[in-house]
Amino acid sequence: MEGVDYLRDERSKAQFDVETMKVAWAGSPEAFLVCDRMAKLVANDPVFEKFSKPMLGRKELFKNTLRKTAHAWKLVNDLHLTEEEAKWLRHYIDEPSYTDLQWEMFVPALEGQGTEEQKKKWVPLAKTMQIIGTYAQTELGHGSNVQGLETTATFDRQSDEFVIHSPTLTSSKWWPGGLAKVTTHAIVYARLIIDGHFYGVHGFIVQLRSLEDHSPLPGITLGDIGMKFGHGTYNTMDNGVARFDRVRIPRDQMLMRVSQVTKEGKYMKSNVPRQLGYATMVSVRQTIVSDASKALSRAVCIATRYSAIRRQFGSRDGGPETQVLDYKTQQSRLFPLVASAFAFRFASDWLKLLYTDVKQRLEVNDFSTLPEVHACTAGFKSLTTAATAEGIEECRKLCGGHGYLISSGLPELFAFYVPACTYEGENVVMLLQVARFLVKTVSDLGNKQPVGTAAYLGRASLLVQKNCVVQTAEDWLNPIAILEAFEARAARMAVGCCQRLAEFKSPEEGFAELSSDLAEASLAHCQVIVVSTFIRRLQQDIPGRGVKQALEVLCNVYALFLLHKHQGDFLATGYLTPKQASLANDQLRTLYSKVRPNAIALVDSFNHTDHYLSSVLGRYDGNVYPKLYEAALKDPLNDSDIADGIHQYVQPILKQKLHSSKL
Amino acid sequence: MEGVDYLRDERSKAQFDVETMKVAWAGSPEAFLVCDRMAKLVANDPVFEKFSKPMLGRKELFKNTLRKTAHAWKLVNDLHLTEEEAKWLRHYIDEPSYTDLQWEMFVPALEGQGTEEQKKKWVPLAKTMQIIGTYAQTELGHGSNVQGLETTATFDRQSDEFVIHSPTLTSSKWWPGGLAKVTTHAIVYARLIIDGHFYGVHGFIVQLRSLEDHSPLPGITLGDIGMKFGHGTYNTMDNGVARFDRVRIPRDQMLMRVSQVTKEGKYMKSNVPRQLGYATMVSVRQTIVSDASKALSRAVCIATRYSAIRRQFGSRDGGPETQVLDYKTQQSRLFPLVASAFAFRFASDWLKLLYTDVKQRLEVNDFSTLPEVHACTAGFKSLTTAATAEGIEECRKLCGGHGYLISSGLPELFAFYVPACTYEGENVVMLLQVARFLVKTVSDLGNKQPVGTAAYLGRASLLVQKNCVVQTAEDWLNPIAILEAFEARAARMAVGCCQRLAEFKSPEEGFAELSSDLAEASLAHCQVIVVSTFIRRLQQDIPGRGVKQALEVLCNVYALFLLHKHQGDFLATGYLTPKQASLANDQLRTLYSKVRPNAIALVDSFNHTDHYLSSVLGRYDGNVYPKLYEAALKDPLNDSDIADGIHQYVQPILKQKLHSSKL
Ligand SMILES: Cc1cc2nc3c(=O)[nH]c(=O)nc-3n(C[C@H](O)[C@H](O)[C@H](O)COP(=O)(O)OP(=O)(O)OC[C@H]3O[C@@H](n4cnc5c(N)ncnc54)[C@H](O)[C@@H]3O)c2cc1C
Ligand SMILES: Cc1cc2nc3c(=O)[nH]c(=O)nc-3n(C[C@H](O)[C@H](O)[C@H](O)COP(=O)(O)OP(=O)(O)OC[C@H]3O[C@@H](n4cnc5c(N)ncnc54)[C@H](O)[C@@H]3O)c2cc1C
Repeated sequence: MEGVDYLRDERSKAQFDVETMKVAWAGSPEAFLVCDRMAKLVANDPVFEKFSKPMLGRKELFKNTLRKTAHAWKLVNDLHLTEEEAKWLRHYIDEPSYTDLQWEMFVPALEGQGTEEQKKKWVPLAKTMQIIGTYAQTELGHGSNVQGLETTATFDRQSDEFVIHSPTLTSSKWWPGGLAKVTTHAIVYARLIIDGHFYGVHGFIVQLRSLEDHSPLPGITLGDIGMKFGHGTYNTMDNGVARFDRVRIPRDQMLMRVSQVTKEGKYMKSNVPRQLGYATMVSVRQTIVSDASKALSRAVCIATRYSAIRRQFGSRDGGPETQVLDYKTQQSRLFPLVASAFAFRFASDWLKLLYTDVKQRLEVNDFSTLPEVHACTAGFKSLTTAATAEGIEECRKLCGGHGYLISSGLPELFAFYVPACTYEGENVVMLLQVARFLVKTVSDLGNKQPVGTAAYLGRASLLVQKNCVVQTAEDWLNPIAILEAFEARAARMAVGCCQRLAEFKSPEEGFAELSSDLAEASLAHCQVIVVSTFIRRLQQDIPGRGVKQALEVLCNVYALFLLHKHQGDFLATGYLTPKQASLANDQLRTLYSKVRPNAIALVDSFNHTDHYLSSVLGRYDGNVYPKLYEAALKDPLNDSDIADGIHQYVQPILKQKLHSSKL
Repeated sequence: MEGVDYLRDERSKAQFDVETMKVAWAGSPEAFLVCDRMAKLVANDPVFEKFSKPMLGRKELFKNTLRKTAHAWKLVNDLHLTEEEAKWLRHYIDEPSYTDLQWEMFVPALEGQGTEEQKKKWVPLAKTMQIIGTYAQTELGHGSNVQGLETTATFDRQSDEFVIHSPTLTSSKWWPGGLAKVTTHAIVYARLIIDGHFYGVHGFIVQLRSLEDHSPLPGITLGDIGMKFGHGTYNTMDNGVARFDRVRIPRDQMLMRVSQVTKEGKYMKSNVPRQLGYATMVSVRQTIVSDASKALSRAVCIATRYSAIRRQFGSRDGGPETQVLDYKTQQSRLFPLVASAFAFRFASDWLKLLYTDVKQRLEVNDFSTLPEVHACTAGFKSLTTAATAEGIEECRKLCGGHGYLISSGLPELFAFYVPACTYEGENVVMLLQVARFLVKTVSDLGNKQPVGTAAYLGRASLLVQKNCVVQTAEDWLNPIAILEAFEARAARMAVGCCQRLAEFKSPEEGFAELSSDLAEASLAHCQVIVVSTFIRRLQQDIPGRGVKQALEVLCNVYALFLLHKHQGDFLATGYLTPKQASLANDQLRTLYSKVRPNAIALVDSFNHTDHYLSSVLGRYDGNVYPKLYEAALKDPLNDSDIADGIHQYVQPILKQKLHSSKL
């Protein structure tokens, strides 16, 4: 029935104040208000309706998103939204669109890599959308290895221009969002060549289309790279291919903040340190970690609500069956993911602080923390996106058969999310970068005290000797015990790898051979950081009835779940005894019982609108079954009782007249 | 370039005879020939073309598949194909269609649950497709718990009929394939009610549509349940919903092989043992395991070939970069999946033998092995489908960004495959059934010697005491050492769970509380079976140069990969020392180097046609890049330079005229 809250009983069980938890999730009262307002703005505007998406073909999907994007931009202007508000508006519209590239890649690249003069010219054009840009780095043949890009930018001293050229098929730019049909400009990354010498890969502002009639400029071939995973998802966006046939751009369209080419064709480093880019990198990765927490929070919200509605087995004396949320197997798959969503959320909050810290240091030319920051953010990126992608699919499975319907929201969420494991640094490549840092840190331990998130490695010699002192399941609730376990395991893995590396002829050979183990050590290191960030967050004051307590339970769930999952590492390194590992698992089971009464309230704390979730299974009111039915009936196949094709292809079979039919 | 084999060098490295390996994979020379012929028949017939699928809307997808299905049935008749051949034909067409239900569910249910008389009447109609049937068990409210189904079949003595009725919304049949638009009949599972008494859930043959004009019969409401995961995949099929409003069927349309209702309304068990259904169950699960191996073989074939073509980093002196297949991280993610495909393949071959064995036993009323068979097949189902679903997604990630394109074949393979984790027994529910068996087996150890795949538990008391004797990495190549490790770990986990169960007030409470640990113990048990099946297969004669050796390497990879992944179990149960686990990991790395030269040849052995793979990345000739480009250009968005919507929704933004535009 409409208007009834089928989850009311569940909500009444909550042992904490949901409204304050919403603020804790959002980060601050102000952040909560902005998000809440933007979410509702989107949810209540019919232009942003998205339930009809599954019925649209590629062209319609694309056009539909163009319309939403234009409408959104109109709102930004009409309502004088701040950049922060506009960002949330885009977020809640929940459709990949060219503006993602404009605001998250194009503008930041101009701001980060352009000179003052360049910024003055280009940034206002971009910010008012008089030009629309994309970030054209990846090519058909190269993604991860940016130094292998083949597009060339050859300086022509005569005309004071660069000639942008695609010398091979594999040099075609491939993937950039909006590139196919929408963007008028791109920052094209290309090998700079002056007088036959190669000066590394640089970014160039290239105009792609006429601002008058939108047609591609001479020498530029643009196209769409075709359908992607899922139905809607990235198919709303025109990821594109571009080929350049000796396209000329003025010299001042090379982004010259860090290196310059003079009129005379001299290549010069400017006095701006190369490391400035790190701040942007931290900011981009902060967004990725924040996005991970959001995507995972959506998935667990759907799966948790549906698991409270879904009943299967266990009816006694004709009473209702058991809510599947009450099964320990369901809890052990679901609750760690709820906890992960919070863990990633707090990790992303912390990355914001890190960003400020890095920016301040860069301003005074303090580069000392950069290697550590680089490793930590790369690791965060890899850990959170991998866990989120896996977690979304687990949530889909937790919903049984109905999770397979598009109307559950989960298939499309998965298809939309998974490329995060690949773009902005392929996850395994990222872990290997962390590994390089770890190896270096451990090798330098004699000379250099590691800082920040790697500081614990400074105690490595202690950590490889200490043993866990836990004696009861309760002892595992102690954050100090937890943290030491994670640190000891990570330190032992890192040190262990380094010792084995020393047995190889060359360090490079060893690194290659042991790379898989090194990646595991890196993951262990990243888990230290996520766990410790969660723990530190809880050392702060958190207001609201029961809010802190509920979060403490989640923090312990997160840590002990990881401990159980990676039990092999903890035992292999000898820090834990099997008995201690088993106590941790016992405690974990107890913790699940503590999460259970709060489960619905916890996912309510994300403050997700039904529009944003776009899931029949995850509806706030739990009115699942009638709405599943309603959604089904909208499928075009239900337009008629006898579907197109039946007369032609089925009836001849039934009537045994197939031989004489034309197919 | 067309006609060039870009993988020729790789193929020339193979250390075994690919043609003989193809036979080993197929199971026998005869099986190979049938598969090969059917695969080519499909690949060469333009009707079965599937590259245009991404461009089709829901109705077109559905119609297109109807056409293919009719064409296939015509071929079956024209070419006088055997049932085996027809099955492979359907398989290679590679699109979910109503005939899957007809042949894999409807006909087997008639044959397995119908009386001789019923079979005589219905089976020929079905086999000649004069009627088209589906299997209508699942309802909106119930899947896993079949006893909870709500549809009623009330006996009306007066008219000698059953009245089929959907009393609630949640009793609507929901999911059956072909139900929405195509099938004329269904086996509807419903609660049998006679004189107000409930006699359990039974199957009833219900006609759904007129055989004349295909319209739904009075009292029956049919519809499609809407779009499912992915673009094409299951959207080619009309999974449906059905509601019955007091629909009458003659009494003799209850499937009465095992239980009957007489004219007088008496409910009677026939003298046919209820256990007969087990044979069908084994056969269905054999197909599922076989399908798992096929799906995984497709994914690893694509990822392996592409990984040999893809190069990234590591160029020396301007030479070519490293093939990503040479990175140890890539190998450690990919090669265990190649090995798993073979492991599942041999597991499914063995299940065929088990099927014959079960059938023979049932004929002489020997039910002694059934509990073990039930547990073993449930476990196989869960283990292989879960690993395959995960493996396909891993393969997609292994292809980097390009794996996200539909043209890579992997997104749709994933979306198509994942429901196997849910249908035919939800995977976690299956593992819990295995757990019940394990608990019972261990508790009965004093009285009853376990048989078949559980026989090793008979040695439990020994296995919980023994310790691993491995001393060198080479020792891990010994199948006896491997098998004992898996048996010891599984036995210890099962025994450990049973000991802890005894601490609970009631066994049921304990089972519920420990269910997550029990599921882990079940998985360990299933791994014993898969590993031992692989090992036993290799004890047979396997002809062909190097074929057996190559398979031995894979068998070891499979086992040691599992050992590393579940290292925690092995260490926690105390059977292995950390040193021994580490030696296993060292051996695993060595094994990867042995797989490497054979990698392409191994995936060639699956004998997959390019049509079947439908992947640009997995093309036999490795001509990836030009073909990616070609495939992209076919997207409808590339029909025009200036896409529909640009003038309306983008130009007003660029020209700053949004305020005056109508959106
Ligand atoms: C939806 C989406 C949107 C995108 N948008 C943009 C965009 O707007 N602009 C843009 O420029 N690009 C974009 N990209 C491209 C993206 O940045 C690349 O796909 C990404 O950088 C990964 O590179 P790759 O595809 O070359 O993968 P590859 O590097 O080819 O990866 C293939 C495999 O090789 C392995 N591998 C690679 N190098 C190593 C190594 N050194 N050691 C061990 N293993 C290795 C990887 O782990 C992976 O398993 C987008 C991609 C997607 C999917
Ligand atoms: C593509 C597709 C095709 C299908 N085709 C058909 C068809 O042709 N005919 C037909 O009849 N059906 C069909 N089905 C339905 C399918 O058989 C069911 O979806 C399946 O049986 C799972 O049941 P469920 O959906 O009720 O899941 P649920 O049982 O509701 O599962 C939800 C969650 O509850 C958990 N759970 C349930 N019971 C327990 C328990 N006792 N202990 C612990 N956890 C539990 C599960 O582990 C899962 O995480 C199809 C489904 C799909 C996806």
